[in-house]
Amino acid sequence: MCWVVAHANINRYKADLRETRFVLFEQFRAGELLGKPPFENWGVDEVNMVLDEVYRYATEVSGPLNGISDEGCRIVDGTVTTPPGFKEAWKKLYESGFKSLSIEPEFGGQGALATVTAMVTEMTSGSCTAFDMYPGLTIGAAELIASFGGPGQAERYCPKMHDGTWSGTMCITEPHAGSDVGDSKTTAKQNDDGTYSIKGTKIFISGGDHDLTENIVHMVLARIEGAPIGTKGLSLFIVPKRRIDEEGNSGDSNDVTTLGIEHKMGINGSATAQLSFGENDGCIGELCGTEPHRGMRQMFQMMNFARIGVGIQGLAIASAAYLSAVEYAKERKQGASVTNWKDPAAPRVPIIQHPNVRRMLLDMKARVEGIRALIVKGAWHRDHAVAIGDSDEKLRQYHEGQLELMTPLIKAYSSDQAFSICETAIQVHGGVGYTADFPVEQYCRDSKIFSIYEGTNGIQALDLVGRKLGQAGGANMQAFLGDVQKFIDETKDHADLGPAVAKLAAAHAAVASTAMTFLTWFQEGKMDRVPLAANRFLDMMSEFTVGWLLLDGAKISIEKQKSVDKKDADWAFYEGKKHAACFFASHVLPNVPSSASVIADANSSALEIPEAAFTTV
Amino acid sequence: MCWVVAHANINRYKADLRETRFVLFEQFRAGELLGKPPFENWGVDEVNMVLDEVYRYATEVSGPLNGISDEGCRIVDGTVTTPPGFKEAWKKLYESGFKSLSIEPEFGGQGALATVTAMVTEMTSGSCTAFDMYPGLTIGAAELIASFGGPGQAERYCPKMHDGTWSGTMCITEPHAGSDVGDSKTTAKQNDDGTYSIKGTKIFISGGDHDLTENIVHMVLARIEGAPIGTKGLSLFIVPKRRIDEEGNSGDSNDVTTLGIEHKMGINGSATAQLSFGENDGCIGELCGTEPHRGMRQMFQMMNFARIGVGIQGLAIASAAYLSAVEYAKERKQGASVTNWKDPAAPRVPIIQHPNVRRMLLDMKARVEGIRALIVKGAWHRDHAVAIGDSDEKLRQYHEGQLELMTPLIKAYSSDQAFSICETAIQVHGGVGYTADFPVEQYCRDSKIFSIYEGTNGIQALDLVGRKLGQAGGANMQAFLGDVQKFIDETKDHADLGPAVAKLAAAHAAVASTAMTFLTWFQEGKMDRVPLAANRFLDMMSEFTVGWLLLDGAKISIEKQKSVDKKDADWAFYEGKKHAACFFASHVLPNVPSSASVIADANSSALEIPEAAFTTV
Repeated sequence: MCWVVAHANINRYKADLRETRFVLFEQFRAGELLGKPPFENWGVDEVNMVLDEVYRYATEVSGPLNGISDEGCRIVDGTVTTPPGFKEAWKKLYESGFKSLSIEPEFGGQGALATVTAMVTEMTSGSCTAFDMYPGLTIGAAELIASFGGPGQAERYCPKMHDGTWSGTMCITEPHAGSDVGDSKTTAKQNDDGTYSIKGTKIFISGGDHDLTENIVHMVLARIEGAPIGTKGLSLFIVPKRRIDEEGNSGDSNDVTTLGIEHKMGINGSATAQLSFGENDGCIGELCGTEPHRGMRQMFQMMNFARIGVGIQGLAIASAAYLSAVEYAKERKQGASVTNWKDPAAPRVPIIQHPNVRRMLLDMKARVEGIRALIVKGAWHRDHAVAIGDSDEKLRQYHEGQLELMTPLIKAYSSDQAFSICETAIQVHGGVGYTADFPVEQYCRDSKIFSIYEGTNGIQALDLVGRKLGQAGGANMQAFLGDVQKFIDETKDHADLGPAVAKLAAAHAAVASTAMTFLTWFQEGKMDRVPLAANRFLDMMSEFTVGWLLLDGAKISIEKQKSVDKKDADWAFYEGKKHAACFFASHVLPNVPSSASVIADANSSALEIPEAAFTTV
Repeated sequence: MCWVVAHANINRYKADLRETRFVLFEQFRAGELLGKPPFENWGVDEVNMVLDEVYRYATEVSGPLNGISDEGCRIVDGTVTTPPGFKEAWKKLYESGFKSLSIEPEFGGQGALATVTAMVTEMTSGSCTAFDMYPGLTIGAAELIASFGGPGQAERYCPKMHDGTWSGTMCITEPHAGSDVGDSKTTAKQNDDGTYSIKGTKIFISGGDHDLTENIVHMVLARIEGAPIGTKGLSLFIVPKRRIDEEGNSGDSNDVTTLGIEHKMGINGSATAQLSFGENDGCIGELCGTEPHRGMRQMFQMMNFARIGVGIQGLAIASAAYLSAVEYAKERKQGASVTNWKDPAAPRVPIIQHPNVRRMLLDMKARVEGIRALIVKGAWHRDHAVAIGDSDEKLRQYHEGQLELMTPLIKAYSSDQAFSICETAIQVHGGVGYTADFPVEQYCRDSKIFSIYEGTNGIQALDLVGRKLGQAGGANMQAFLGDVQKFIDETKDHADLGPAVAKLAAAHAAVASTAMTFLTWFQEGKMDRVPLAANRFLDMMSEFTVGWLLLDGAKISIEKQKSVDKKDADWAFYEGKKHAACFFASHVLPNVPSSASVIADANSSALEIPEAAFTTV
């Protein structure tokens, strides 16, 4: 909070809309889909208008809450109280309609492109991560009901969840069931009227309780009595905090108790609740849909959605941290230029002139723009899959397959990078970056959860290697490698980018050969080697993909520069895209072949070391 | 705090004294120096007794304060109040005598080996980083007076600073002079009695105010009127918070005002004060020593000491985080074994049995033990330099030169690794690692400052490349490379370690060739390239050094295993040393040649990118 006052200019939330428009319109050519079904209500002007309006909301409504949100939630009389200003922001957010952009028109939404929604969410999330989690999870919960709900369920719940009257949560984790969801013990017992009595404890429920809405719709995984053990016996239930009466209004308590909230490293404005369902045997849930034992499968759709959402959270906070660091580096004067550093009388210069600071800033820029391109590429595949619909089954499957393949990269790489980029942002600030006078230390703390929730990054890596590589008989991976190869073939002799593309080609070979290594291990039953190398492979494949997309953006930028005056701001913008791509190719892409060698080396010390050897304590 | 109660076993501060003894006695053979001048009062038993006693202090006195220290300091009536328990711990610490272990006997200390002091400090710091900063900085300030003080100064100040009656600080940074110390504006005007009137504002003063002692001795860099600009015009002054009377007792206020304390990401129990000297023209300081304008040179000795201290802080917190993660991984059950992961009825296992968790733990173990070996190697050089004294000038210079060369590695690599190791520790914990129920998130926050204070890691990298590589005409670097080459030659055909040593040899060639690249750049006047590559080189050289020292430890361990029964706990301990070294060689050493290629690639995008290209905001 104090930084809001003390350093208003540096600390105001910022997004670079020029970059957003480049990604949407120039690199991923949203124009090709706009104005045509199912996006017939959307044109370039509409997209730009939404971006401008959301940016205004992010800077004026949501952004100013970020500092104060760090003070956290409290429990008063058994109910969570959110930080000051959250209620008003919630009202404004739902008046604005930004949160129904991605919703299908049949549920009152605007059916916007996923690429546009991603860029909108970057701003709503980046300006105040903690606040944006409440509406973000609400959309997720409503989408579950819309997708899988039985007769009348979507009608009863979705409209009020989309207009901000009610919120929603995902209740998966239990004290003894984290990554191992199948071990959950919450039970559901069918009543005579077809409803279920729910009983159990769920933890780590984001937005599990709060004072923003009159009701909270919990989507709860529970096991119906007699159902199989493991994930296959889990069903999904709709469990409102207060029961819904015949008219669809919130009524009596549904015996959902808030046991406590976590004291966390960050995202303190987002209440992470421990909830008890049915402590007094009075908690009633409806099965979501009509078929039991399909909860895990249903929740997985939500999780894929949520995983991309976490990727966007990472991008959002990384971008905000980067832009804060640039602003600080332009304002802070310290030391003389490297050209006359030995002269104590030389004028002090802004630190953005120091090579090592420029290196850190360009490193951040390349990574931020790289994960943005990765996320928008994923969303682009989704938009094309939706636009194609039934018109070309094979092409749609291609796009869907690519999104599947990229989802673990989006979730894990973006989240790991976010933390690392925030670390660099602190370093650019020096000592003041460690204080609450500037927002970067909070960004860093807030971002650490991204690598953990919605499936840890270890789980993501296993998803990539164990499921996605071999999905569709390996066709998705083959198509992906083919797409990059096509770019390499077309660009390898590019005057400016040739040397960088050569590094991309080396990375291509390394990714392809490592994928084969995994295949061999699977075939030979060397299952325990896989998790040892999976995270490294996820990083390799992410760096490779990001390197490709940055070079793709650079190629477009260099082409565009030909018709722009050198004095024009756009010329510098495009020049920045080129340098970011070349920097990444030079500094990061060499990791990929190096990592391939490490994986091929197949050191198995982590398996062989005796447990007693870790420590004698 | 809540974690102290909730998870007492996992969260109690831990150190692995078996590892400490290995490093001290088996790898760095402290026995060769014990019992001989100037360490004639020290034997193996004395060292072991001190280690045991300090561990008891760390677990029983200092460790239990760590959680509560996170609540931070407050200002009451213009004075800083430290967290509950700090005063009692201060008293116990000085009763124990641990803080005078390293002090020369002539000042009442025990003149212990630097290797032993380093391992003692690992425990005092790791058990409560914030608390340990107060006595740590006090030693530093007292050593400055002992080294450079004029007639009577050491006698007046040091005894009371060594027995805990007074504390000390270093006052360097000002609002507009951070890394650029030479730009500082604090002035000193000589009075008729030879004292100086000090006037100015200092910020980021660790322990700048507190309630632990009756007086605080500030060591203040200031410019005497008329002195040259830049660092060469700075002098060092002794400026107590309360004036010292003729009898050496604390008297009236010396016009040193606490303007405020920082709200920080971590080390909240350590008050980071903004101090105003001479607001009412009543602040009197004594020149430290008799010659003016030598303040920067004097402070640099302190900084070298402090930089190694920061390296130890990094090691200390990294080790604590690692041991917490191991304990958690042994207790937390989640998921089935990888051997029957498809069977939902398979028994749940402790997560330490999962390959990806083992990988993270072994990665942390290798890094923690690696930075410990790096730090003790540096201390070992110091002990040998001291023991040699004037008996062999050339050999002493060799040892001193190696410590000089390693100091930036110790400071920067240990601090960067600490943050990263804490991140991994959080990841091992999963969601609970993000909460205050476990100490790892605090460790992570506490550790972030290490890469910034006492010279940012960017400054350390420039110190390494710009000063240390060419120091003594390059002889220190040559000797270092020669030492590692000797190990490679002797070990390359080792039955267990041969393949790992081959990776060390590749890293050797890469470090040597990159050092030549820098030399070429200096010769060609390409100064602006240096800071672009300096941090990467520091990492390369650190990874190389750590890889060497881990393999050295592994070689010793394998030899020792020959005389140990396989069922003996020591056998597993030695086996762990072997696996840690081989893991590091396989997973980390390949970075070194890869980084050498990146540096040789000499991408200059960070220099070429126009400032306007960073962002259009």
